[in-house]
Amino acid sequence: MDKIKSVAVVGGTHGNELTGIHLIKKWEKQPELINRSTFNTNILFSNPKAFEKRCRYIDIDLNRQFKTTGLNNPDLINYEQSRAKAINSQLGPKGDAKTDFIIDLHNTTSNMGPCLLLLGKNEFYRKMGAYVKHRMPHAVIIIQDFAAPEDYAFLISIAKYGVTIEMGSQPHGVLRQDILTYMEEMTGYILDYIEHVNNNTMPDLPSDYEAFYYTETIKIPVDDKGNRIGVVHKEVEGKDFQPLSPGDPIVSLFDGGELGWQGDYTAYPFFVNEAAYYEENIAMALSKKITVEI
Amino acid sequence: MDKIKSVAVVGGTHGNELTGIHLIKKWEKQPELINRSTFNTNILFSNPKAFEKRCRYIDIDLNRQFKTTGLNNPDLINYEQSRAKAINSQLGPKGDAKTDFIIDLHNTTSNMGPCLLLLGKNEFYRKMGAYVKHRMPHAVIIIQDFAAPEDYAFLISIAKYGVTIEMGSQPHGVLRQDILTYMEEMTGYILDYIEHVNNNTMPDLPSDYEAFYYTETIKIPVDDKGNRIGVVHKEVEGKDFQPLSPGDPIVSLFDGGELGWQGDYTAYPFFVNEAAYYEENIAMALSKKITVEI
Repeated sequence: MDKIKSVAVVGGTHGNELTGIHLIKKWEKQPELINRSTFNTNILFSNPKAFEKRCRYIDIDLNRQFKTTGLNNPDLINYEQSRAKAINSQLGPKGDAKTDFIIDLHNTTSNMGPCLLLLGKNEFYRKMGAYVKHRMPHAVIIIQDFAAPEDYAFLISIAKYGVTIEMGSQPHGVLRQDILTYMEEMTGYILDYIEHVNNNTMPDLPSDYEAFYYTETIKIPVDDKGNRIGVVHKEVEGKDFQPLSPGDPIVSLFDGGELGWQGDYTAYPFFVNEAAYYEENIAMALSKKITVEI
Repeated sequence: MDKIKSVAVVGGTHGNELTGIHLIKKWEKQPELINRSTFNTNILFSNPKAFEKRCRYIDIDLNRQFKTTGLNNPDLINYEQSRAKAINSQLGPKGDAKTDFIIDLHNTTSNMGPCLLLLGKNEFYRKMGAYVKHRMPHAVIIIQDFAAPEDYAFLISIAKYGVTIEMGSQPHGVLRQDILTYMEEMTGYILDYIEHVNNNTMPDLPSDYEAFYYTETIKIPVDDKGNRIGVVHKEVEGKDFQPLSPGDPIVSLFDGGELGWQGDYTAYPFFVNEAAYYEENIAMALSKKITVEI
């Protein structure tokens, strides 16, 4: 593959996820921490206005505004839709971007630990997961590979390659020391990995590793007025990446009943009861545990 | 003491603390769950506009607007200041209230478990703590007794008696099944206790019990621009109500140093790294462990 020449590290895509915001402010003052010899590293604070308001967004979720059709639609004019176009102009444009690689820094209220979400499964991504997992064995590697590039709505999709770092559990609006340490560590490993790719100096990597492959999203059912009729079951609460067998309870209904997992495979939930997904009534995402061979 | 004739159960004083909001909506449909024979129980959804916006408040923290001077100051006109006057008119007026007892339902992002905060330590409150603790041994009883009635800024201070239920850890904007169960259970015990007081049918209570007495608040230091220069130390994170000895680390500084607890007593922290206290740079509240004798 071509060398990676331009990297962007992005924080504050959601204004109440404080770890990335703290780190980009730190790195603005100490750029040597994220600079490497073979590429430029740029920093972007993507939604400072939402941060000022201590909320996820002003008008709409910024990290869902980067589909090619949306970026090209001049009628989408609210604050985050406008920010998306501005960021696409700054780091993109999507499909022919001046930025080769984006790292977007996020927090989750779910008990997911330190997660690296790869937006694809080609050799570059697979080896990145191996490199990070080898140095940070408690990290969780997640593969998202469910759309064509133009149809991804994430900020990272405007570059040739991109990853999301998600770390929790951390309530929105809180800064936890442990998560701050993990995020700085993981970001450093990713930048080191790219440096090795560019220099052709990759150290030995394990031949395979455990990862999770996104499969689907589970919603809380609602009544005819749109109100939720249940809550994430206490047996699943906090148990991200622990196995759910078909029939295991996933939703407790307010009328006393419960709903079980209806699929035909052993699922590994994540984003369990994430605060930001309430407006869409999402209970959790599901994945399959896989072995990634590099 | 006089009988309690009028009780108000309040939810949604902070719009992103969902457990109380869910419960008052439930009880509006099933009032028999909170009615008792010797008093009227009213329900109040105190800040529905903040709930619609998925935030703690619109203009200012509603639960700090109930000092007598503020209620009597016609120049305080923002949304929550106006709500406070309206609620004082509805349930109060403070100092001569038509409501004898208020229960205000809250959540915290801190790992506090199910907590009952008593706004005083007279026999009525002490026995209430005993009644609840006896039936719910994992409940934590906290005594707040730091001001004259007119100087308390809490909503509950407009009635003759009042308690706050605080339950966590629950990220703001999330509903957890376990916390929902605990809050409904504790509210029921408090109403049962008042019924026993009114009927003079109090069952035997333990002669004493463990509780925590609020002492002071610890802040994160800031630089000359007002920016925090550290974070709650990872050794204290999540350890509400676990002992801190003088010298134990409480703040980790971004420059690599740390600050220890400077007091001369064994402190029991709570509200450790609470999201809502970021704007005031509060790291945690402290308490002393005490034995309450009834």
